[in-house]
Amino acid sequence: MKMVDVGAKAKTERVAVARGRVRMSSQALAAVRDRTVEKGDVLAAARVAAIMGAKKTPDLVPLCHPISLSGVEVDLSAGSVGVDIKVTVKTVDRTGVEMEALTAVSAAALTVYDMLKSIDRGMAIESIQLEHKSGGRSGVWTRAEIAQAKLKARRKS
Amino acid sequence: MKMVDVGAKAKTERVAVARGRVRMSSQALAAVRDRTVEKGDVLAAARVAAIMGAKKTPDLVPLCHPISLSGVEVDLSAGSVGVDIKVTVKTVDRTGVEMEALTAVSAAALTVYDMLKSIDRGMAIESIQLEHKSGGRSGVWTRAEIAQAKLKARRKS
Amino acid sequence: MKMVDVGAKAKTERVAVARGRVRMSSQALAAVRDRTVEKGDVLAAARVAAIMGAKKTPDLVPLCHPISLSGVEVDLSAGSVGVDIKVTVKTVDRTGVEMEALTAVSAAALTVYDMLKSIDRGMAIESIQLEHKSGGRSGVWTRAEIAQAKLKARRKS
Amino acid sequence: MKMVDVGAKAKTERVAVARGRVRMSSQALAAVRDRTVEKGDVLAAARVAAIMGAKKTPDLVPLCHPISLSGVEVDLSAGSVGVDIKVTVKTVDRTGVEMEALTAVSAAALTVYDMLKSIDRGMAIESIQLEHKSGGRSGVWTRAEIAQAKLKARRKS
Amino acid sequence: MKMVDVGAKAKTERVAVARGRVRMSSQALAAVRDRTVEKGDVLAAARVAAIMGAKKTPDLVPLCHPISLSGVEVDLSAGSVGVDIKVTVKTVDRTGVEMEALTAVSAAALTVYDMLKSIDRGMAIESIQLEHKSGGRSGVWTRAEIAQAKLKARRKS
Amino acid sequence: MKMVDVGAKAKTERVAVARGRVRMSSQALAAVRDRTVEKGDVLAAARVAAIMGAKKTPDLVPLCHPISLSGVEVDLSAGSVGVDIKVTVKTVDRTGVEMEALTAVSAAALTVYDMLKSIDRGMAIESIQLEHKSGGRSGVWTRAEIAQAKLKARRKS
Repeated sequence: MKMVDVGAKAKTERVAVARGRVRMSSQALAAVRDRTVEKGDVLAAARVAAIMGAKKTPDLVPLCHPISLSGVEVDLSAGSVGVDIKVTVKTVDRTGVEMEALTAVSAAALTVYDMLKSIDRGMAIESIQLEHKSGGRSGVWTRAEIAQAKLKARRKS
Repeated sequence: MKMVDVGAKAKTERVAVARGRVRMSSQALAAVRDRTVEKGDVLAAARVAAIMGAKKTPDLVPLCHPISLSGVEVDLSAGSVGVDIKVTVKTVDRTGVEMEALTAVSAAALTVYDMLKSIDRGMAIESIQLEHKSGGRSGVWTRAEIAQAKLKARRKS
Repeated sequence: MKMVDVGAKAKTERVAVARGRVRMSSQALAAVRDRTVEKGDVLAAARVAAIMGAKKTPDLVPLCHPISLSGVEVDLSAGSVGVDIKVTVKTVDRTGVEMEALTAVSAAALTVYDMLKSIDRGMAIESIQLEHKSGGRSGVWTRAEIAQAKLKARRKS
Repeated sequence: MKMVDVGAKAKTERVAVARGRVRMSSQALAAVRDRTVEKGDVLAAARVAAIMGAKKTPDLVPLCHPISLSGVEVDLSAGSVGVDIKVTVKTVDRTGVEMEALTAVSAAALTVYDMLKSIDRGMAIESIQLEHKSGGRSGVWTRAEIAQAKLKARRKS
Repeated sequence: MKMVDVGAKAKTERVAVARGRVRMSSQALAAVRDRTVEKGDVLAAARVAAIMGAKKTPDLVPLCHPISLSGVEVDLSAGSVGVDIKVTVKTVDRTGVEMEALTAVSAAALTVYDMLKSIDRGMAIESIQLEHKSGGRSGVWTRAEIAQAKLKARRKS
Repeated sequence: MKMVDVGAKAKTERVAVARGRVRMSSQALAAVRDRTVEKGDVLAAARVAAIMGAKKTPDLVPLCHPISLSGVEVDLSAGSVGVDIKVTVKTVDRTGVEMEALTAVSAAALTVYDMLKSIDRGMAIESIQLEHKSGGRSGVWTRAEIAQAKLKARRKS
């Protein structure tokens, strides 16, 4: 087992954007919107959890490199079927920050669940995935473009 | 904001079972099965990450009580569309272990993603949810039963 | 050096209340009140930091026992000369939670400083102290009573 | 909520000096000086806690960047009314180390309190504040100079 | 993989004693004794590291249960060929504290190495082992007795 | 006490290799080889523990600098008298990674002990030591060469 050697890679700016969602009952969603949850403000707690989660990534994910983060931005909102989460992480380092963005989304989702579980135990954490990354040898990757490319390929065949 | 006072609750045996999945390309799934991933054995790393993740729950989820865990069991396997994860957590304490089970599943899912991201960046972490809990004042809760009850209610109406 | 043996003490309910304050310029205080701080909501971030800080106490304070916490409650508000912090911690264990309450206040104070330091670097964290404790062999202790007793003693002499 | 993006800032040498004090009864102070505290050497434990505390800063302060530290120096001594704490932290990075210096002072103060609380529960942690910082865009800041400038301004008016 | 379920075990007092040694050059040993090490007091730093290490055991050892510790006592001294370490850990819980005692010894040994490595890079951490344990279903275990029993068995045969 | 200032040192590639061993009964060693240990795969768990241990070094060793790691490689195998551990750590930073390599070996050794302690409580962690380092002002250091040099010196005298 090994944490892959990245010593020969260049330190460049790298960005990763990840998303996810906690699907919940309309009753739970109303409690988020109306700020009537006993434990406190759900979105505020989840925002802090996301940023602290980004910093804990190498502690949670065994083979992940410990790196400096130059910025983390969190967008959380009550959507139509649950709480929508989006996190952007930046660094200037030898390896990307996909795992930091995904871990931040996971920490926010778990926090949302924790604060609402007395109202709805059946919530589901859904579709935690990378949306976009840039920087590093592999360059830009965007989920939407990949999806379109696949669609085109299918139509042609 | 507050960590709800559970001091008056009884210490009883409490169990929680959570599940989740990392959906991936057939190429990534084959690499898991054939153990050809450069970083090492994907399922072994994710199993350890799940157990260590369960222990880090109060560190990740702001309002979660720090409690002793009496047991954690992890089942990970390569399924038909990705890696399936199931974690059972037990305690004898004043509060349940739903968050520990869900956090363990999340840590395993993030670890699977990390080890395979050089093969498939488009993977998605899906359906992290509680399957079953028992113990404590609220008693037994089972996802399957809830689903059947809803179905019945709909048919009647 | 030793972490004192508390194995022979009884598990009883123990409560500790601590307070502290971040004294700041009127400009910084206005930014807290008007929620115009670039990094986000100062009081919300500090509340979460207080609760997570309570849980990190044995990690920060070398000879402090690692114990379960049954509840943590945080009161933060913009006062007349700065942000006032009050934290109540409860446990049912063999040792008290004074350190958890004081650490929670410290974590909140540091977070307030961090979020406002671009406006006022001259802020001071002041008077972090225990206000009240109960439970355990030493029983109830209250700062106000101690102060009154001292005053009486002085008047008599 | 966001951890502000510092990716465009230059990596330069940055220094921060913070101070604080634990005010205590003469009995408690004598115990520090005479090394008669049951738990062990108070100043030695607090010195280690300060350095480890500096390293835990991003874990305690939610929006603080995780950065490398190039040096930490701790001065602790029994003063006239309590234990005086001074910590100097250095880095070569994109953001300053004020929070690391303040957190280190806080960790030392909490440790002093913990080791002496069986003698004096009424101790207070006082005046944790930045004394000096240099490096980075905002340049040198010194508490004494700021105080003198304010004094001059008042005399003139 | 699993953290074995101990929920059915009784909470009883459990004690574990572990030892170890850092073998070093006479020059390094003299620096410990004369307190001439640049970084500071070697034995004081290692004593604190041992106690904090005991508390970090479930964080370092994947399948180890997170438990409360009721006491930790550390004995460190400069011996004839290096620094000798002995740690006693106590708990009142469902599982033993052998791992906590061994981890505390390891943390102390690593700290001794760290503080002296500029003098002697060839030091070796030796013979970290359990000396004694009591409590729990398996009862008392003592290294010396086991050794004597083996010796007797050999003589008879 | 101080974490020595390394701000003036150059960032260069630095490598450290450390080794250690857990000596055990033939019965315990057979359980490792035959994978019949109840808790799970011993070598897989210890490999993950080694890598996560390397990342926790500044958390365990008080005066150790927190640095980025560019790579960690772990070799674990069942040898003739126990489990043999070798870890290689790399960084591009201002200070070496000897402590990270030694801590990784220690974490692996403790994990091996934990997983086998129900079979053999008398195991010993032996000879955790640096084998090789390169990079930085002090250049290359190799245990074997040092040993040969000492041998030569003795023969001459």
